[in-house]
Formats: sequence, structure tokens, C-alpha cells
Amino acid sequence: MNMDSPRSESIPDPAVRRLSLYLRQLEEWHRQNRPTISSKELGQSLSLTDAQVRKDLAYFGQFGHPGIGYHVEDLIARVRRILGTDKLWNVLLVGAGNLGRAMMGYRGFSAKGFNLVAVFDADPAKTGAKLGNFTVLPMEKLQPTIQTLDIRLAILAVPADFAQIVANQLIEAGIKGLLNFAPVSLNIPENIATNSVDLAVQLEQLSFQISTLKNS
Amino acid sequence: MNMDSPRSESIPDPAVRRLSLYLRQLEEWHRQNRPTISSKELGQSLSLTDAQVRKDLAYFGQFGHPGIGYHVEDLIARVRRILGTDKLWNVLLVGAGNLGRAMMGYRGFSAKGFNLVAVFDADPAKTGAKLGNFTVLPMEKLQPTIQTLDIRLAILAVPADFAQIVANQLIEAGIKGLLNFAPVSLNIPENIATNSVDLAVQLEQLSFQISTLKNS
Repeated sequence: MNMDSPRSESIPDPAVRRLSLYLRQLEEWHRQNRPTISSKELGQSLSLTDAQVRKDLAYFGQFGHPGIGYHVEDLIARVRRILGTDKLWNVLLVGAGNLGRAMMGYRGFSAKGFNLVAVFDADPAKTGAKLGNFTVLPMEKLQPTIQTLDIRLAILAVPADFAQIVANQLIEAGIKGLLNFAPVSLNIPENIATNSVDLAVQLEQLSFQISTLKNS
Repeated sequence: MNMDSPRSESIPDPAVRRLSLYLRQLEEWHRQNRPTISSKELGQSLSLTDAQVRKDLAYFGQFGHPGIGYHVEDLIARVRRILGTDKLWNVLLVGAGNLGRAMMGYRGFSAKGFNLVAVFDADPAKTGAKLGNFTVLPMEKLQPTIQTLDIRLAILAVPADFAQIVANQLIEAGIKGLLNFAPVSLNIPENIATNSVDLAVQLEQLSFQISTLKNS
């Protein structure tokens, strides 16, 4: 068994999410030229215990050195390999509305190894338009573009009513992972990776917390 | 004990997240004029078992009727009360960049009872500008605006390096809940509700899933 390529079923989703947060913090320390850090420091930066940090990392192998802690640069390289971001990923976007435009302008993607390489829209009024570095493509170009540019990830920023149709088109055209911003639950085959962000649901979770904090 | 205002500590976060997804689905059925639904249908729409649905709702009280299921309209009203969205919430935004502009144009917030009522930016080059229905306000107006408009929720769409400073200003000015889009872990007091969305982390979770699906 390759410890850096574990079966995803065996690892709790929250541990994988925290792995991304550890990486983000490690990259910040690397920019500050910190050579090593302890599990305690890594935990504190994310309001976690050092035991939690050690437990999360233990799913993926042996990283720390007794009395030294973790080598920042080494741990970054290994976490990137685990998360699959040691390689570059070409990403496409469907939906050239407000949210889609924000994605086009977001510099945080390329810093993490995700290159937005193509933008699509089903609306003929939008296709052909030049937005920043992108020319908005019609959906008919989906399949050839995915093949030519070896794209496996897609960001879905379309209205709720169209999300399932577009998701089906993307999967049929060869996309392996979908980040969905439409406020709807998609029906997606099990061998396709998905993640959803519903902006209103995020606020709703806050209003719940505030309402219950007040009453408790 | 008021069953519709439970202590948030006693309810697992994933159950609260699913409550938002149940509500979203129920609202869709309500638009389609469905009077009742079963826990099985509600579960299927979200790829969950009916047992999971019943367990999640049981945290908050007794909702179903044997042989009938749930009254859609009644359940919507009760879930909204639990989530705190039976009342309107005034929301402010800090950060008038690409992502902030997408938030300003996002119609999904008001549909859920969240009214974006003010936009701020620390950059003097941006303040005073008219963006859609908003005039971008300087940070000095934070406290009086929060008080005048009774704002308790804030969306943070600022660069990582400024996020903690702005979060501190917001909390000092009276904000009770923060939705943070900056790619950084914030240090926030326990009595303040927070939720974070890091767009690159969302893609990273997909690249992990694809990498491990392939290897498993």
C-alpha cells in the first residue's frame, strides 16, 4: 500500500478538509521562512489540539520527527502529493454571470495549482464575448475542449434550474470532478467527485448559530 | 425547553447543514404545489436514507404524521424558525473586488431572507463608487451603519492579509456572524458565529477525491 495514496473511503471527510487547511497554514509559514513547526503550533493556528493534528496526519503516513516536529517544506510537498496538487489541474467554468466572473478573476486558484483554461455559457447572448483573458465558448465546444486541454475539473456557476442538465453534459464529456455553486442538490454518479457551495446556505448556518447562541 | 430553539452544542454540525438542504428541497416542492412528502422522498432527493432524515429532524422536535408524512408548508415554516430565517437579516459586505461584486449581484440571498444592505471597502480608490444599487462606504462608517441598520451578519471578501484586521473591526462594531471567503483561518471569539469558504480548498478536495478514486 502506498501511504500517500490512501483509499478515500477509509479517511473521514473532515480530516481531508483539515489537510487543506494545514497545507494553507504551512504555505504561509514557508513564505515566512520557517524551517520546522510542531504539531502544537500547527494545531493552535487552526484552533485544534496537537492530538487532532497528529491523528489527521497519521491517516496518511509518518511525517514528524521527535524533538524537531515537522519540516515545513517536506510536509508541504507530501500534503500536496496526497491532495493531488503536486500536479497542475486544468479547470473549466460553466456560467459567465456574476459569480462566474468572480471565479475568472480569482487569483487564489492558480496559486494552488488550478488553472482556469476555458469558460462556457449556454446563453448565445454571452458566447463569443471576451471577458478578461477568456472568450466565452458555447456548450457545443465542451467535449473537444475537454479532450484537447485534458480538463478533469469543472466549476458550475449556473442557475439552479440548469445545473443538473449542465452537470450531465460535463460528465458525459469526460469531467471527473464538479464544484457546484447552484443552490440545488445534484444527482451525480458515484465515480464522479463533487463538492457544493450554496452561498445562502452558508449564511443560514450563521443565522442558526446566532439564534441558538442567543437562546442558550 | 423550546424544541424549536435547541442549544446548538447538542446538535451535530452536519445535521444543521442538512437542515438547510432539506429546506431548500422543501421550498422547491412548495413551488410545485406539493402538499405533503414522506421522509423517504426527502431522503432520496438528497441521496440520504429516510432514517437519516427522521433522525436529523428529531433533534428539533416532532414533525411527521404517520401515514401522511410531512406537511410541506408547515415543515418549511418550522425549519425556517429553527434556522432563524423566519425573520429577515440585514447583511453587510466588506470587499468590493471581483468576489464582492458577485455577492452584490447574487439573488439567492434575498430569496432566503438575507438582505445585503451595505458594502464597505478599505481602499479609498473604491469608496464612493457606485456599484449596482450600492455606494461603497469607507470603513469609518462601519459602526454607525451597523447600528442604524441593525446588521448582525457580515460577508468578508477581502484579501487574506487583511481578513483578520477587518474581522476584528466588524466584531468590535457589533457583528455577530461572519462568512469568510479569505483563504486564511481567522481567530474569532467563541460567542461569534463563523463560517469559511475557501474556493481553492474546495477544488483541492475534488483533486484529492479524483486522485484517490483512481488509485483505489
